[in-house]
Amino acid sequence: MRFCRYQLSDQSTGIGLVVEDRIVPLQDIDPALPTDMDSLMAMQSAQLERLAAGCNLPGLSGSVKLLAPLAAPEKVVCVGLNYRDHAIETGAEIPSEPVVFNKFPSALIGPGDTIELPAESKRVDYEAELVVVIGKTARHVSEDEAMEYVFGYCCGNDVSARDWQKGTPGGQWLLGKTFDTFAPLGPYLVHKSVVPDPGKLRVQLRLNGETMQDSTTEQLIFSIPQVIAHITQVVTLRPGDVIYTGTPPGVGDARTPPVYLSAGDVCEVEIEGLGILRNECK
Amino acid sequence: MRFCRYQLSDQSTGIGLVVEDRIVPLQDIDPALPTDMDSLMAMQSAQLERLAAGCNLPGLSGSVKLLAPLAAPEKVVCVGLNYRDHAIETGAEIPSEPVVFNKFPSALIGPGDTIELPAESKRVDYEAELVVVIGKTARHVSEDEAMEYVFGYCCGNDVSARDWQKGTPGGQWLLGKTFDTFAPLGPYLVHKSVVPDPGKLRVQLRLNGETMQDSTTEQLIFSIPQVIAHITQVVTLRPGDVIYTGTPPGVGDARTPPVYLSAGDVCEVEIEGLGILRNECK
Repeated sequence: MRFCRYQLSDQSTGIGLVVEDRIVPLQDIDPALPTDMDSLMAMQSAQLERLAAGCNLPGLSGSVKLLAPLAAPEKVVCVGLNYRDHAIETGAEIPSEPVVFNKFPSALIGPGDTIELPAESKRVDYEAELVVVIGKTARHVSEDEAMEYVFGYCCGNDVSARDWQKGTPGGQWLLGKTFDTFAPLGPYLVHKSVVPDPGKLRVQLRLNGETMQDSTTEQLIFSIPQVIAHITQVVTLRPGDVIYTGTPPGVGDARTPPVYLSAGDVCEVEIEGLGILRNECK
Repeated sequence: MRFCRYQLSDQSTGIGLVVEDRIVPLQDIDPALPTDMDSLMAMQSAQLERLAAGCNLPGLSGSVKLLAPLAAPEKVVCVGLNYRDHAIETGAEIPSEPVVFNKFPSALIGPGDTIELPAESKRVDYEAELVVVIGKTARHVSEDEAMEYVFGYCCGNDVSARDWQKGTPGGQWLLGKTFDTFAPLGPYLVHKSVVPDPGKLRVQLRLNGETMQDSTTEQLIFSIPQVIAHITQVVTLRPGDVIYTGTPPGVGDARTPPVYLSAGDVCEVEIEGLGILRNECK
């Protein structure tokens, strides 16, 4: 099952089931169904199966804009240097534990939204990432039980201003990672029931149609359960919190010569089974 | 004017004006007044002056618990190494620009709440800090106009697990700073109109009654306007966002021998005109 948030031409928003290329509003399946993602995530798996009835309904017609699948997560957690091949590419050591940083929720944008290149940076880069969406409150969760707390997955682009991320006093990545619009997310929130093994997904990034990143989540140094176990030693994860799990090799900053994003560039993150997240830069 | 959020014995919450040691619910002054901090911050300064009428009203009686003045800010921004004397103490260079990191909002607790010492750390430390509360949406704000975007101030304690903050792969401070309960805030939200110069406030931390930090905000390397200007180059600050502005010398980790927090310890952050933020560890 794939879900989305959408906005209609009258500015009203809703959540829908994505069936092939149709969007079926949950309200059309049953008016008692949730109208927001938080309520959807609170449903039991058995209840979610009722939604299959929506597969035979017509989709929305007219102008429909997809929004970021989560409206306002409390936390946008990110893992750095989490692909073996990317860690080697950047010259960093393979980390002995997950490198955890974050973006502010104010950086989130949806599919089709514009990545705004700030005048303050000359080195803005892309990073295709598998994003995990938490479905249940989680604290001190073991690796064995971690997947019970996952609701589903999205494509994400961990857009990064390298000149702000690296080489600044204190070495904190936050500002370089959290310019407004630097967290594209979408196009859908794909329920875990249709992603048999998130540790075996092809992850690609195309820049203006050219493949720049192409790897699989088999290269993850720390698996999703290991990342969730590590983070929940420290913080309470809540429904709707998202975790960007790291990027494979091929980022622009590690290329010779380096490649940075320019106005008019189009980034497409494609992850097997999760769709294509497309964002243009300006 | 000092404001607070409170909870009554029936678990209902409200916001109040603090008059000497009384709490006057805003609703007692005028039922049309805001019932939450977001609405309060949206009021114009001229309207706030009407609240002075509350000074002659009786306060709440019975059991009243103070809460963190902000319920759920989108951002808890922090500045590191921002006191000249503290930067020297830690052996760090005086930074050439603000060192910006953050905590997750899930770390916030109020006055009187318990700092939970995690089993995962042996080196939990205190940091007394002046906290700035943003009152208006701010982006690309100049130093000259920055103070217009400030609503007021609180005391904060930037509790830090030094073994998680430092020396881990990637060097990111986030996890060491954001264990649940590691962001005490309060006791009040003091409106800027009664803080004539936030750059000249005495900042103290007492541990079990003994003064461990005692400096003034005159030692700030980057002033509040400079910090706001720097951050809003990157992100949109929203009403209710908070900025922990850095800590003066005397932190436990820089002492010989080092001092770390233990169960039963009591931290008191006192800032001139802002009250005392008291939290016990367990």
